Amino acid sequence: MAPKGGKFEIKTPKGTIDWDGSDMIIREKIFSTITEVFKRHGGVTIDTPVFELREILAGKYGEDSKLIYDLADQGGELCSLRYDLTVPFARYLAMHKNITQIKRYHIAKVYRRDQPAVKKGRMREFYQCDFDIAGAFDPMIPDAEIIRIINEVFDSLGWQGAYTIKLNSRKILDGIFQVCGVPENLIRPISSAVDKLDKMPWEDVRKEMVDEKGLDSAVADKIGKWVVLKGQRDLLEKLKQDEDLSANPSMQQGFADLEALFTYLEYFGALHTVSFDLSLARGLDYYTGVIYEVVTEGSAPEVSASAAASAAASDSLSKAPRKKSGKSGDPDEDRSNDPTVGIGSVAAGGRYDNLVGMFSGKSQVPCVGISFGIDRIFSITNARMKAQHKTEEPRKNDVDVFVMAFGGGKDFTGLLKERSEICASLWSAGIKAEFLYKLKPKFQNQFKAAEANGVPFALILGEDELAQGKARLKEMGLPDDHPLKEGELISLKTLAEDVQQRITRKKQLDALTQKAEGLRVVHGIKGEEVKSAATDSTTAESSQPVEQPAVQPAPAAPEATETVKS
Amino acid sequence: MAPKGGKFEIKTPKGTIDWDGSDMIIREKIFSTITEVFKRHGGVTIDTPVFELREILAGKYGEDSKLIYDLADQGGELCSLRYDLTVPFARYLAMHKNITQIKRYHIAKVYRRDQPAVKKGRMREFYQCDFDIAGAFDPMIPDAEIIRIINEVFDSLGWQGAYTIKLNSRKILDGIFQVCGVPENLIRPISSAVDKLDKMPWEDVRKEMVDEKGLDSAVADKIGKWVVLKGQRDLLEKLKQDEDLSANPSMQQGFADLEALFTYLEYFGALHTVSFDLSLARGLDYYTGVIYEVVTEGSAPEVSASAAASAAASDSLSKAPRKKSGKSGDPDEDRSNDPTVGIGSVAAGGRYDNLVGMFSGKSQVPCVGISFGIDRIFSITNARMKAQHKTEEPRKNDVDVFVMAFGGGKDFTGLLKERSEICASLWSAGIKAEFLYKLKPKFQNQFKAAEANGVPFALILGEDELAQGKARLKEMGLPDDHPLKEGELISLKTLAEDVQQRITRKKQLDALTQKAEGLRVVHGIKGEEVKSAATDSTTAESSQPVEQPAVQPAPAAPEATETVKS
Repeated sequence: MAPKGGKFEIKTPKGTIDWDGSDMIIREKIFSTITEVFKRHGGVTIDTPVFELREILAGKYGEDSKLIYDLADQGGELCSLRYDLTVPFARYLAMHKNITQIKRYHIAKVYRRDQPAVKKGRMREFYQCDFDIAGAFDPMIPDAEIIRIINEVFDSLGWQGAYTIKLNSRKILDGIFQVCGVPENLIRPISSAVDKLDKMPWEDVRKEMVDEKGLDSAVADKIGKWVVLKGQRDLLEKLKQDEDLSANPSMQQGFADLEALFTYLEYFGALHTVSFDLSLARGLDYYTGVIYEVVTEGSAPEVSASAAASAAASDSLSKAPRKKSGKSGDPDEDRSNDPTVGIGSVAAGGRYDNLVGMFSGKSQVPCVGISFGIDRIFSITNARMKAQHKTEEPRKNDVDVFVMAFGGGKDFTGLLKERSEICASLWSAGIKAEFLYKLKPKFQNQFKAAEANGVPFALILGEDELAQGKARLKEMGLPDDHPLKEGELISLKTLAEDVQQRITRKKQLDALTQKAEGLRVVHGIKGEEVKSAATDSTTAESSQPVEQPAVQPAPAAPEATETVKS
Repeated sequence: MAPKGGKFEIKTPKGTIDWDGSDMIIREKIFSTITEVFKRHGGVTIDTPVFELREILAGKYGEDSKLIYDLADQGGELCSLRYDLTVPFARYLAMHKNITQIKRYHIAKVYRRDQPAVKKGRMREFYQCDFDIAGAFDPMIPDAEIIRIINEVFDSLGWQGAYTIKLNSRKILDGIFQVCGVPENLIRPISSAVDKLDKMPWEDVRKEMVDEKGLDSAVADKIGKWVVLKGQRDLLEKLKQDEDLSANPSMQQGFADLEALFTYLEYFGALHTVSFDLSLARGLDYYTGVIYEVVTEGSAPEVSASAAASAAASDSLSKAPRKKSGKSGDPDEDRSNDPTVGIGSVAAGGRYDNLVGMFSGKSQVPCVGISFGIDRIFSITNARMKAQHKTEEPRKNDVDVFVMAFGGGKDFTGLLKERSEICASLWSAGIKAEFLYKLKPKFQNQFKAAEANGVPFALILGEDELAQGKARLKEMGLPDDHPLKEGELISLKTLAEDVQQRITRKKQLDALTQKAEGLRVVHGIKGEEVKSAATDSTTAESSQPVEQPAVQPAPAAPEATETVKS
């Protein structure tokens, strides 16, 4: 919105938000969980600029190129904000011809001028977490590891059984289109129409193919026979049994790929999470082989756009305003409450063997990768935590000790010197500590400040104790009958060590308590209460390696968000 | 540079770079070191969008506003890339009126269309690490804690004795200008001229004041008497003894501030790192109280611009091309090799009590903060490590186990199934593992791949051992006469536990070895070999709190860059 008469609204730009408080803590936890999985698979990280030369992005995103943010021409080079992390990665590989193999991860913001739905995690500025394996290897082994990584990420986030990896192959999809008789120039547009099958019924997709894109209706019907199918190895067998399909060279390559992939997924114990879904097409031009998309409850819209439109037409009192149900409304308007907008996929990716070559000319580096949509994952995680009444807010900061002055009366100095010096000695020992920025603070106000941040220990300074070279360390929140309710006197000479010892002991105790409550907590976090309809169609076919039960990584205690120094 | 005839150079935009390899690892280490200090002082983090509404940034940066990157007008709101993290923080506080006190840190990229000098860490896209204390408190206590935080950050980075915090007060500076007779409308321009005293001699600054800015030469001479002075409490006393200065109300406020500040810095053991420097003025408009800038060796240019210009004039064969010595050249050209460009300050900040009110209207939130320039800190750290022949590259990835197949002959299957399953069982146990993406890999190639990444353990699978339910775990790089040179057979039934145990044991041993070598390493990292001229003028006046030696945080072992889960 433009400023009104010199005044303007103090806000962030549309489709962007500030992150803070417990949201920030939950998001950091998601980042660290994902990073841990990436490192477990040998990932190394790189960081590319937030903007690229405009030519680098040109011709990579098909229709979606209109969503790219350009920088103003202020003289010098023309640049645009990055639309994803994949194209910058390919540009990086083309610039570094010595790198022929790399497993790289990259966690960073990307930018799309799309219509936002902020509450559903559909933002204009959003984080992607990408893992890509670049290099020429024996076919489908890295592709299978990417699927395994998807499993580990969502399992670590506690989503077991609550997500499905929809998987297809561009080679198979193109083979079907060829055999059904789609003209070469219509293959990508028809592919885009098929991709909408997760949002609208086949009848509507067929209509778009025939009426809008001019496809022969007999061809559309042939396509309709195939693209609605889902399965796994059984579906692969079904396709193979069709004589026309199995004679097509693109299909044959696709068959070989998926057969190998299913075998390797079995080795990795990851096959049961995959649904071979012929309706999955993906929009971007650069994919050349397997493609996949991870969906969960909430990914699909509550109602399809066409259903909403006909409901609105037949019921003029419908509460859903007309302009919300299509692209006819204000493109800046937030669609968080629009039932025709789902959260969409929470991760997506595929194989792109020719993208690096688009920059480097001859030298190709085949790549396969996955991109996790953190803002959508966050919005689901957050909603689940709220639904499970996990109202206990995480602590705002990590401070372990609040240093306080005890005293009142008219001779009370406030002990600022002593509080400062003792805080400094704790900081020097690496202990997280703070005190109130007041010359003569009231005792109650210091206590309140410590309680507000959930600081576990108070270090109380009093004239008398200081004269004896001592101070009182008190654990906050102990019950009235606890023997240490009033705290213990500790010597200033060994202050930092003694305080550190008490902090460590408390953390160990808390960890034990948490472990004891573990099953309940884990149950909650893992989201078992969330009904999973999405996985019903897949076969539960988990192969356990070498007679040994797969051990799930233990859920991390809250302290795990900190970086621990050795 | 514009594309030439359809083709264009594959590169990052000018003044931006890709980060990867050991640079990335060193930078992440710098981030985690700084974050640890921030958390130790109770900092909480927020994340704001990379672009802001253009009006938010307008009128905040004085002359430097011309360096702001604008986004193109593509319909909708007009936005610009953030220029720093301070203005977005003030905007955030103005939007969240419930937050009246916060210690917030923010580590993120900012953008300035300045002439770059990439090798000196002067970039157009660069990281800032900001810590700010917002809230109304008793004067100067938070300001002193910020200085203490600067100490802890640079000490943790191993820069003890190799940096100086130049400190001044806007109140004192403005008082001097008023007393010397600078007209009100010239105070900011004259202040900007004074700020150049770190780059050019007084004669040149005086010339700029009189010739360019039209200041009375007698007034300039009066100013010149003061602004060249440096000291600490002694300088404060000297100023106070001047009758004219001490009668000025702005000076009186400045005196009270600095007296309190020096006292509190003494409490914090931080006074010895500060140089009260009347030439420090800082460019930005929004400062209202104390200002500071951290300099180190390399901050100042090798030669002043004016000296370079006269050298070039007197010697037409001078190797330094004329256009490099001033602003007359191409503003996009990199000035990494220009001796008139120094690294500049490595951190800077100050008190800004009115900035939040510029957004929120009446409700002010006084703030004080510091911003660390990570790219400059990196370039100095990197140069020091190279100068000290620290050529040992950090490991590229964190993988602990490389799973290999042993065998050859024509019946060799390659054991892909077994390698995959065993890798999967290690991953499930949280162990970092990889294998070669080959159906039938050569043994030597697997070894080479493990060695190239410095992977510490090889898990070798052979038909015979597998038949016995076993595999061979071999530590890489053991000497020939080591009893475990050939590795040890471990059971597949307890594989993950046994492997984890060996990894943990090795890490403990490595940590001990490193500790034993610690003094040498620490000496190197701490940069004692770097001669510090900058601190000569400051008094070493360290006050140790409560009879207890301040313990420096131990330098972290390389493993500390990982996030450790409990």
